[in-house]
Amino acid sequence: MIRVLASALAGHLGEEVTLQGWLSQMRRLRGLAFLILRDRSGTAQVVLRDPQEIERVTALSHESVLAVTGLVTARGDGRPGVELQELSIDILAAAHEPPPIDLFRPALELPLPTLLDYAPLSLRHPRRKAIFEIAAAAAHGFRATLRQQEFVEIHTPKLVAAATEGGANVFPVGYFERTAYLAQSPQFYKQMMVGVFERVFEVGPVFRAEPHDTPRHLNEYVSLDAEMGFVDDHRTVMAVLGAVVAGMLAAVQEQASGAVALLEAELPTLPHALPQLHFTDAQRLLHAVRQTGEEPLDLTPRDELALGAWAKKEFGSDFLFIEGYPEASRPFYTHPDPERPGYTRGFDLLFRGMELVTGGQRLHRYQDYLDALSRRGIDPAPFAGYLQAFRFGMPPHGGFAIGLERFVARLLGIQNLREATLFPRDRTRLDP
Amino acid sequence: MIRVLASALAGHLGEEVTLQGWLSQMRRLRGLAFLILRDRSGTAQVVLRDPQEIERVTALSHESVLAVTGLVTARGDGRPGVELQELSIDILAAAHEPPPIDLFRPALELPLPTLLDYAPLSLRHPRRKAIFEIAAAAAHGFRATLRQQEFVEIHTPKLVAAATEGGANVFPVGYFERTAYLAQSPQFYKQMMVGVFERVFEVGPVFRAEPHDTPRHLNEYVSLDAEMGFVDDHRTVMAVLGAVVAGMLAAVQEQASGAVALLEAELPTLPHALPQLHFTDAQRLLHAVRQTGEEPLDLTPRDELALGAWAKKEFGSDFLFIEGYPEASRPFYTHPDPERPGYTRGFDLLFRGMELVTGGQRLHRYQDYLDALSRRGIDPAPFAGYLQAFRFGMPPHGGFAIGLERFVARLLGIQNLREATLFPRDRTRLDP
Repeated sequence: MIRVLASALAGHLGEEVTLQGWLSQMRRLRGLAFLILRDRSGTAQVVLRDPQEIERVTALSHESVLAVTGLVTARGDGRPGVELQELSIDILAAAHEPPPIDLFRPALELPLPTLLDYAPLSLRHPRRKAIFEIAAAAAHGFRATLRQQEFVEIHTPKLVAAATEGGANVFPVGYFERTAYLAQSPQFYKQMMVGVFERVFEVGPVFRAEPHDTPRHLNEYVSLDAEMGFVDDHRTVMAVLGAVVAGMLAAVQEQASGAVALLEAELPTLPHALPQLHFTDAQRLLHAVRQTGEEPLDLTPRDELALGAWAKKEFGSDFLFIEGYPEASRPFYTHPDPERPGYTRGFDLLFRGMELVTGGQRLHRYQDYLDALSRRGIDPAPFAGYLQAFRFGMPPHGGFAIGLERFVARLLGIQNLREATLFPRDRTRLDP
Repeated sequence: MIRVLASALAGHLGEEVTLQGWLSQMRRLRGLAFLILRDRSGTAQVVLRDPQEIERVTALSHESVLAVTGLVTARGDGRPGVELQELSIDILAAAHEPPPIDLFRPALELPLPTLLDYAPLSLRHPRRKAIFEIAAAAAHGFRATLRQQEFVEIHTPKLVAAATEGGANVFPVGYFERTAYLAQSPQFYKQMMVGVFERVFEVGPVFRAEPHDTPRHLNEYVSLDAEMGFVDDHRTVMAVLGAVVAGMLAAVQEQASGAVALLEAELPTLPHALPQLHFTDAQRLLHAVRQTGEEPLDLTPRDELALGAWAKKEFGSDFLFIEGYPEASRPFYTHPDPERPGYTRGFDLLFRGMELVTGGQRLHRYQDYLDALSRRGIDPAPFAGYLQAFRFGMPPHGGFAIGLERFVARLLGIQNLREATLFPRDRTRLDP
């Protein structure tokens, strides 16, 4: 018997086929029973006539898994489309109990903790599922764009001997007789690998022991990392990042158009070149609003929102580069701006008024690393493996990291990153 | 000035171009200096005539990074090919000291600990680099094949509340006020996600606190995981796995042919269908050799080698499926073989006489899970999140996991998995 997906049923009018899926809804009417079966492609209606079969199947709970063999006919109620006239039903797995969530409703109106406690169930809802179809397409677009530009995929260790970005916010791991740490980013490793492949990318988990429990924080998330050698400066990196964001959006449009339509997501149109603004100019713009005196070292979430609104108004752009962050707000490996003491070649990319990407040009000379660590009072000894790359010649290079969940959340107007994560990890949540 | 890669130089004969790369070798001869510059594409020769430039450049250590602008000419020594007549040289980064490894030699003859201690440097050697070009191509082939078959990529948490496969060999993590663990596999999560997408895959790190320090063990490695619903039995999964292995090999051939040639790797030719052998038949074959009485519960590495040799001789195949492993040697979620009590629908795929993949059909009914856990004396409480998926209806399903490093090592005849890992983690190694 030919197996078909719900979405392909109409192409088999008049044929006997087998449809497999989850029992999503059922009702009885004038001696008939109507089932809605859900599979990965969508839903289809099955009509049952045999009284014994009707008794057997309507005794099942929603989410039971069935294989229905039947004849594809035009719908009996005169509406367009087809339905399946049941010939035989195989109960592949009866649900053990009625699900506590009504998956057949157009939207799940549930408090976030319930949604997450029941993730294995709630993720089956088409609107939840759609978010992660979009995430998969975005990750594909990231890789495809970089592969086209001759970047090589790498896999670097998540168990490390020392904290990447300094000692705070790192998870300790009991590693045989000693303590290891979970990598806060693949930063050091992707830089080392510039010495090997010049252009590298990695898609993998990163771990931040942030004690904050806010909608903007996750303790584990997926980082889309890239790093490239032989750059002129950070602008070379920004140009690649612009292409990557365009590639991610194109992949979402091409590969997850159904999900985009279902969620009524508005995909941003990209200007030919993304607008960019120096940190000091951003401060001037904000000062006009805020009337404060002294220049801050970083942007607040509120600043980012204001700048995002400005970019939308001035350039019609959902994206805005802020470049030239002050040294004090960037990590030790950030390349300073030789023309503006105190400022760097580090940048952020804001997406709809929130930081989506952090990147920049990095230091590339060994002595510069020793000086930078010394200026910050950091002992270079734990970084010996990393510094080896610079002892033996590294080109000018830079890169960036995109938070996948953050990209998806901003794209879909999701306020809490947990909703854009399959099984989020936060201060209180490790399960499911 | 147009920038070209070393491999593209010949296409620019008579032009002025800029070449950027690492100083790999140099020699002086009759008032000239000859440099070999290495970039990601290969090497090229640069000829220096200016005495001052010769003094400046030959004072540099190997692995210094240069940008050379010059004229592309036919080689002066009458050999085929081109070289670059230096016009100007920009020293992008001088190596701080002479590298302790001679990267210009055709092969690195170094003890493994030295190779790994100097990974940021030794990975620059073309033969080391080639291994990871092949790994990147293989990972791409894995994803491309599964995407074609409508599998969706997922990202599941590596921080978990309970050990996946039982309590042993799991790394504890200090997680705020409690203890989390590092996931030994995405097994539970990929199964839960079959309830959402039916077909899923994940590429990510897994963590095994194996105390063994052998060439076959790593404490962190890259697992290529897939899981699919609505299978007839484990054979449906084996058919997909066959296509995936073929796709991985095709990607290696297409995208890393230079690396394959450099390493003189012999890619296996795949028979149309991979041969398969039941565990009990494998034992019979081995018994003929071993003359022992009682059937063991698993295959030893030596058994696998013997069976691999048998498959090569009988079928000309580098691959052999062993199906039907005994229940006692498989995890609780393995689907039993209804026709052979005591045996399962679990399989391994051997590649050149070593286990490369473990897979099988899984249990899919809630009560079967409760029974299986109870038979093994395992408390179901820590698995509540996982079991939720089965309480609310799951189709017959199965999947597999391929160790990326192991695939590459077997393909290239590498004996120690550490050589097929960028920055391996073992009992004593966490750095670099």
